[in-house]
Amino acid sequence: MKLRHKVLEQCEKAREASIRLGSIDSEVKDVVLYELAEDILMNKERIIEANGIDLRSSEGKISSAMMKRLMVDDKKINEMAAMVRSVAKLEDPSGKVLQKTELDKGLILEKISVPIGVIACIFESRPEVVVQISALAIKSGNAVLLKGGKEAINTNKVLVDIIRKSILDNKGMPVDSVQLLETREEVKEVLKMDDFIDLIIPRGSNKFVKFIQGNTKIPVMGHADGICHVYVDKDADIEKAIRICFDSKCQYPAVCNAMETLLAHRSVAKRILPRLAKEYGREDVELRGDSAVRKILKGVKKATEKDWSTEYGDFVLSIKVVDDIDEAIGHINRYGSGHTDCIVTEKKLNALKFIDLVDSGSVMWNCSTRFSDGYRYGLGAEVGISTNKIHARGPVGLEGLVIYKYVLTGDGHIVSEYSGKKGKKFKHKRLKG
Amino acid sequence: MKLRHKVLEQCEKAREASIRLGSIDSEVKDVVLYELAEDILMNKERIIEANGIDLRSSEGKISSAMMKRLMVDDKKINEMAAMVRSVAKLEDPSGKVLQKTELDKGLILEKISVPIGVIACIFESRPEVVVQISALAIKSGNAVLLKGGKEAINTNKVLVDIIRKSILDNKGMPVDSVQLLETREEVKEVLKMDDFIDLIIPRGSNKFVKFIQGNTKIPVMGHADGICHVYVDKDADIEKAIRICFDSKCQYPAVCNAMETLLAHRSVAKRILPRLAKEYGREDVELRGDSAVRKILKGVKKATEKDWSTEYGDFVLSIKVVDDIDEAIGHINRYGSGHTDCIVTEKKLNALKFIDLVDSGSVMWNCSTRFSDGYRYGLGAEVGISTNKIHARGPVGLEGLVIYKYVLTGDGHIVSEYSGKKGKKFKHKRLKG
Repeated sequence: MKLRHKVLEQCEKAREASIRLGSIDSEVKDVVLYELAEDILMNKERIIEANGIDLRSSEGKISSAMMKRLMVDDKKINEMAAMVRSVAKLEDPSGKVLQKTELDKGLILEKISVPIGVIACIFESRPEVVVQISALAIKSGNAVLLKGGKEAINTNKVLVDIIRKSILDNKGMPVDSVQLLETREEVKEVLKMDDFIDLIIPRGSNKFVKFIQGNTKIPVMGHADGICHVYVDKDADIEKAIRICFDSKCQYPAVCNAMETLLAHRSVAKRILPRLAKEYGREDVELRGDSAVRKILKGVKKATEKDWSTEYGDFVLSIKVVDDIDEAIGHINRYGSGHTDCIVTEKKLNALKFIDLVDSGSVMWNCSTRFSDGYRYGLGAEVGISTNKIHARGPVGLEGLVIYKYVLTGDGHIVSEYSGKKGKKFKHKRLKG
Repeated sequence: MKLRHKVLEQCEKAREASIRLGSIDSEVKDVVLYELAEDILMNKERIIEANGIDLRSSEGKISSAMMKRLMVDDKKINEMAAMVRSVAKLEDPSGKVLQKTELDKGLILEKISVPIGVIACIFESRPEVVVQISALAIKSGNAVLLKGGKEAINTNKVLVDIIRKSILDNKGMPVDSVQLLETREEVKEVLKMDDFIDLIIPRGSNKFVKFIQGNTKIPVMGHADGICHVYVDKDADIEKAIRICFDSKCQYPAVCNAMETLLAHRSVAKRILPRLAKEYGREDVELRGDSAVRKILKGVKKATEKDWSTEYGDFVLSIKVVDDIDEAIGHINRYGSGHTDCIVTEKKLNALKFIDLVDSGSVMWNCSTRFSDGYRYGLGAEVGISTNKIHARGPVGLEGLVIYKYVLTGDGHIVSEYSGKKGKKFKHKRLKG
């Protein structure tokens, strides 16, 4: 009960802060961000010291990959500061007049972008997410509740303290725009706070994201799985196909936009699979195939039904031979996760069909699935990658943190004057947008 | 289990239809809509006959207001046909290139609007919703599952039959784009189909919408409450205030954008409340007030805490006297439902403060709350009014039924060429949007 009370109090503070933050000028928010970048650099030693405590208490308890993500050094701190400055330089996504309509003389409707309100971001290990999400939230005018992994608690505490002090230095900015949640139990309480929190952004493993999605009424933006496909069409350029298939699988297999399943058209399978197997051999990629694949590539492990819906996140690849583009599209829409899927073909009609019918956030034609990323897409900063079908889809930039409100200005206008047969008529003259 | 199987089959069909429907040309969809308008008129007798069965079996069981909503006559059928034609005339919201960016030479990113996919619309009594939602879904390229009230089942069956026949007449259009669910038990199954359904639009009572929101993982777009406020500021023009307060409450009190609570600044309360009470007397509006109100208006019932968060939907109004604009804003953000709220003032600074700080989908300045409506806003057709903070807010038109996908076209481009210190640099040249 005590815990619930604490979280409720934090949520109320966040809600209050969000209302005030939503009306702060862009310039003030940018000053806070520039000062924050300075403060991060000035507090280098303090951050590294706190991180040292986290590293020592995690030693031997977590994998070396996780230790690497947890570790904060001079270089990472410089990168954090640079990231905050780059967010400051972006255009403020809120306060834009998206549309303006004259409903009638003196009755003007504006559709204005506004921050969503209160966002909870729940993530694992990497402490730089604290700085990244806080910067994006401040820029877009959203209050944020942050919960990082418990192994990073000391680092996260210091980072949030620095952020809050940067906010406090600037008049009008509510300090509770950024707050830290400290325990896993608090997350459970947060999931119930649908009266206060408008959006949850989970960043972490599939299992973690699915848990969040399944245990709250609050909208969740993100992706659980990244089961990405490359389909090599009958009319593919084989050299391009080999480049793209290798890059999509091997350039960085641990991330969500790496290929998990390769679909090869029956008429090219014999030409391409042996060459690909040789390429993949360089990186010791474990191949799993259907029976047609195993006739071409001897000794390859059998792919089971489960393989088609597995995100390996590793040097493992399932391969299937398909009879035509329709079978490929059907397979992707059935087993894929709507994240990123690619067709390799020289035939434009086939590409257009694939682009139309594959129901994914990003569809690639003759380029690697690995391009599916906010930085590469030029969004400036990435909130995350979404496989949602509403609000924001694919790599999400700052525009995913705003919604709009309608503002109608009149001069004593009332509806009864516009009703009935003799009522006034609306003009609906679009002035903007 | 049998029921579950039936619903699952319908959902699978809807999913399949949505994929094909998403790639149908605008012209084909418009032809279907024009033919549908004709078919509705040609089947007038059949519709009225089926509606007669529904009316007879509902007689004495439902209120006269519900009977009126259930009844379909010549005039209503003409309106349905006109509405379908008006939807046909709107711009197709899908297939638009929203943004185009040259990431690098030959590597072009496009952000293209696409239908959401499968939408379930669950509504009460009014059979014209079947036609309205089907027309909007066809226009935007979404497959739809419809569930109306059981009292309208015969009318709804005939309408869906007419719609499906209009679809069938046109090559390439999947007939299962529009399907009817017939029982309440099927709705319960639908709420579990988060693998197939992308969005639920509930239309009905508060209780009904809240039930849907609380019992599904599928995103829900709509509003449960419409607790709208008018705040009469210290600097209000009293004549405008009286017009607006009367219209907002009395023009049509049963709807969600009618005022439920009036907030009057202490310095104008004595001047305005007696005059307003007289106006409201014409319509027998029951007034409930706080103690300050009851000192001014003798014999007025006491407003309790519960009144501030009640949507009467009737000729009842709660009134509170506030000390300043901040108290008004605080009250609205605490008790309101984020639907529509109004300030009456001649002081621009106060209006801007109210517009900034009131966290609602529609904020009105010197005009009636009753304007908050898709038709009046000029959206062409209304999907519903949303109090969500993501995706679509306020009155929602066709644009609320689309999302986007990213399409990246390359020529063998791979990410490894762009990584490392010697990697190629992105151009990120915005070509459109």
